[in-house]
Amino acid sequence: MTHFINKKEDIVAEAVDGVIATSGGRLARLDGYPHIRVVVRTDWDKSKVALVSGGGSGHEPAHAGFVGEGMLTAAVCGDVFASPSVDGVLAGILAVTGPAGCLLIVKNYTGDRLNFGLAAERARAFGLNVNIVIVDDDVALPDLPQARGVAGTLFVHKVVGAMAENGADLSAVTKAAERVIAGTASIGMSLDTCTVPGAPKEERIPAGKAELGLGIHGEAGIEQVDYSNAKTAIAMVVDKLGASMDPDKRYVALLNNLGGASVLEMSILAHELTNSPIGAQLSHMVGPAAMMTSLEMHGFSVSIYPAPTEDLMALQSKTPLVAWPGVNRVVDVPVLDLPDGLKPIKPLASDHKETRSFLTRCCEILIAAETDLNALDAKSGDGDTGSTLAGASRALIAAMDRLPLADHTQLYRAIGQELSQTMGGSSGVLLAIFFAAAGDAASSGMSMRDALHVGLKRMQEIGGAQLGDRTMIDALKPALDQLEGGLPDAAMAAREGANKTANMLRARAGRASYINSEQLRGHIDPGAEAVARLFERLAS
Amino acid sequence: MTHFINKKEDIVAEAVDGVIATSGGRLARLDGYPHIRVVVRTDWDKSKVALVSGGGSGHEPAHAGFVGEGMLTAAVCGDVFASPSVDGVLAGILAVTGPAGCLLIVKNYTGDRLNFGLAAERARAFGLNVNIVIVDDDVALPDLPQARGVAGTLFVHKVVGAMAENGADLSAVTKAAERVIAGTASIGMSLDTCTVPGAPKEERIPAGKAELGLGIHGEAGIEQVDYSNAKTAIAMVVDKLGASMDPDKRYVALLNNLGGASVLEMSILAHELTNSPIGAQLSHMVGPAAMMTSLEMHGFSVSIYPAPTEDLMALQSKTPLVAWPGVNRVVDVPVLDLPDGLKPIKPLASDHKETRSFLTRCCEILIAAETDLNALDAKSGDGDTGSTLAGASRALIAAMDRLPLADHTQLYRAIGQELSQTMGGSSGVLLAIFFAAAGDAASSGMSMRDALHVGLKRMQEIGGAQLGDRTMIDALKPALDQLEGGLPDAAMAAREGANKTANMLRARAGRASYINSEQLRGHIDPGAEAVARLFERLAS
Repeated sequence: MTHFINKKEDIVAEAVDGVIATSGGRLARLDGYPHIRVVVRTDWDKSKVALVSGGGSGHEPAHAGFVGEGMLTAAVCGDVFASPSVDGVLAGILAVTGPAGCLLIVKNYTGDRLNFGLAAERARAFGLNVNIVIVDDDVALPDLPQARGVAGTLFVHKVVGAMAENGADLSAVTKAAERVIAGTASIGMSLDTCTVPGAPKEERIPAGKAELGLGIHGEAGIEQVDYSNAKTAIAMVVDKLGASMDPDKRYVALLNNLGGASVLEMSILAHELTNSPIGAQLSHMVGPAAMMTSLEMHGFSVSIYPAPTEDLMALQSKTPLVAWPGVNRVVDVPVLDLPDGLKPIKPLASDHKETRSFLTRCCEILIAAETDLNALDAKSGDGDTGSTLAGASRALIAAMDRLPLADHTQLYRAIGQELSQTMGGSSGVLLAIFFAAAGDAASSGMSMRDALHVGLKRMQEIGGAQLGDRTMIDALKPALDQLEGGLPDAAMAAREGANKTANMLRARAGRASYINSEQLRGHIDPGAEAVARLFERLAS
Repeated sequence: MTHFINKKEDIVAEAVDGVIATSGGRLARLDGYPHIRVVVRTDWDKSKVALVSGGGSGHEPAHAGFVGEGMLTAAVCGDVFASPSVDGVLAGILAVTGPAGCLLIVKNYTGDRLNFGLAAERARAFGLNVNIVIVDDDVALPDLPQARGVAGTLFVHKVVGAMAENGADLSAVTKAAERVIAGTASIGMSLDTCTVPGAPKEERIPAGKAELGLGIHGEAGIEQVDYSNAKTAIAMVVDKLGASMDPDKRYVALLNNLGGASVLEMSILAHELTNSPIGAQLSHMVGPAAMMTSLEMHGFSVSIYPAPTEDLMALQSKTPLVAWPGVNRVVDVPVLDLPDGLKPIKPLASDHKETRSFLTRCCEILIAAETDLNALDAKSGDGDTGSTLAGASRALIAAMDRLPLADHTQLYRAIGQELSQTMGGSSGVLLAIFFAAAGDAASSGMSMRDALHVGLKRMQEIGGAQLGDRTMIDALKPALDQLEGGLPDAAMAAREGANKTANMLRARAGRASYINSEQLRGHIDPGAEAVARLFERLAS
């Protein structure tokens, strides 16, 4: 698998710079590339408890994306899936820690524990007040004493972030972090592995299988399970989580995209989660969103925390960080009644001799042109223009008795309706728009000629064809422009316009736009020919 | 490729329900599943201009994710990559349009133009004031008259969304939309195709190639180009965009994840974009974020718009929608000086006969135990515990002359420092933490015994091992607990504790935790044995 990266050793430094450059000045980094990669807030004054997190990269937006007002003070970034150095962590602590002290929020992986732990000791040697909490929210293996730290870490960041921002002291912040950690449970599932840049992809998960109980470093899940669909996937995840849930409590769920699931899929998973056996206990939801990813892993994780009121308020408090998707109440989907008017009003049929005769004549002209138009269309399209128009004409003749022939403004719209149903395809819709718009214009008092111009304008607006684009417009527009002078003038203009299309080598709209231009030379556009022939026969 | 979906025909309805259920009550849908899938704001009073957008699904969070205060009023959702029906669009228009009218924002695809266009006609027949704008921001083919609508559509949504929210009338809103569309240019690039759920994956892009000039419906890009890295990828994209840029103008860039690029990669692309030939002209950036996706396509797109002041303000105005990542100034990356104190302070060497002799004795005991400890470790690990401890001991003896032997509080820390450098690995760090924490405690006036207990506590906190976990703790903790009674008592307790580890069949920390429990039976943990042996020899 190829990635959008440059040199492998520059990945993290370049990504960190990208995050900072687009942060609008909210973030800075410490000097010390390439070994020390620490992202810090620029608005920090050390009067409050500093919150430092981090770990291996590859989990973006964690952790740099969560540095800012109301969340972290600094993030220390290691290489992809590798712990940052002790020096890096120490630099982060020293850069942001003042008299109020510092809390290190560390995910439970050996490297992170050790490096953050030793950095804490070294910082303490400077007289700094440094506490450390270890997040171990993964419940993949219920009896593993060293549960991993995964996406539930976000609950900790947000709760203690809000507290620290509001001036809580180190002891209160630490206690809250420990409370959140104790209450949080997470589990992940994936349909595919992720690929560490520069390493080959490990094809570990066969088709029809999923891995359940994942860490976030590409390691294998605890078990491979049969995968059938989103509903059963959520059922398996919920089954693991449910074991630790108190039926009397309400929970905040955090639905995390492990990186490669589409936003569409994540919404379906959200739907399934809210409708799962634990759905009724989920009062609030964070996401779905990519918060703690495993590169582009095609998976998700669910974390739950039965937040007491104060923690729920902290989770809901404002932060300008776009990586934090906020906490929303889970609601039943409100369904509103469909508005009236979806069914088109059927016009009252009425007869009108001249109109019936005129309309029938038009239809007969197009029916008579069927073979010629098909032959012309065979040069530049799929040879069915004649049949399409003749078919619609026959249908219109058959529908004559139900048309409001005596009410011209209603008639336009009714013709449009009939055409859109019998012709199908783009041309049917475009003619429906032409007649509907003309009908509207006529009903607002416009002359027939002006109304037809309005129809033409709307059809062009929607169809996108201009004069010269080798469509029926090339005959229709000149004809309507000359209609004031009578049908013979209009017919002459239509013919002239149609003939010009034979020299238009670049079709700029419609199906002929996909055709090689040399194939078009010398052939009149069949739509334009139909219009010309209609006006010519009507005028004769 | 497998997806997190259920039945193919339910994808969009379930995803829409997922979005609404987690919107906290902000959103509702119209009745009419499965054919009519319209998402609307629940706080809408029709007194302002309604903004209706939509199109095929598969572009999430567009469009339902952008329905809400300051952006869209309704989104009409088609099947994946297929236009919604005329009835669906009409229902959306009718549901939200009042006297102020409605603007339809349509991406330039034939199906969307026709269906939104015809729905507009039908809505106008009800006397509603409906305008329509067609977004055609794709510059993949500069001379294609029917350019596609892609991620630049977001600029339109946000600018006119802010205007409509502030009460601008339909004509002003429409004019603004047309201005934004005229000024916006976009182009995309991908390393792989996306897979429509239920359809086979089209393997169209060979390794080492990328497609440039993509639409968002999985159709092939305009050209296949050689792909080498993120920098050249951005260079090609910027080359296409640069052609239309005015060198005197400053632009807002929108960096869009087409769905399957990792957040890490997107940050690297942001870095490259801000450092590209057009970087100096990019005053602001939206994203990087997944805004207009093509399912899980491993690609990105860049859109640019030279926003005049009023439009920039509209882009920057607040919206509660998390799918909109906001507009940030592009800044040079601020680099802060590294804090002082990263280099550990070298303690002043000093001699102290008894201490030198005691320390040397300890080291010699561990060196003498090398073979035995290795043999023990071979039963449950990789057989190097003896060598590791002996090596560190030899190094400590060699370092004796530079240690602050006369200053015990400094000495602890110095020993920790030496061990962390010579031992390496987890055990080195853990012992460094043990001695550093003990040193800190001693320097704050604690007795040597209490200080050692503090060190033990910190080491356990970081290492995660408890009594009974089959580690050196099982000997060290009892020994320290009995130290008050003198070395012989401590030695006896250490031996007793070490012997117990032979019956601990489940290692709960350290490397032995990965070993089959039956392999552990009858063998003392080598770390515990080392501690026991040290105390025994010291006491003898």
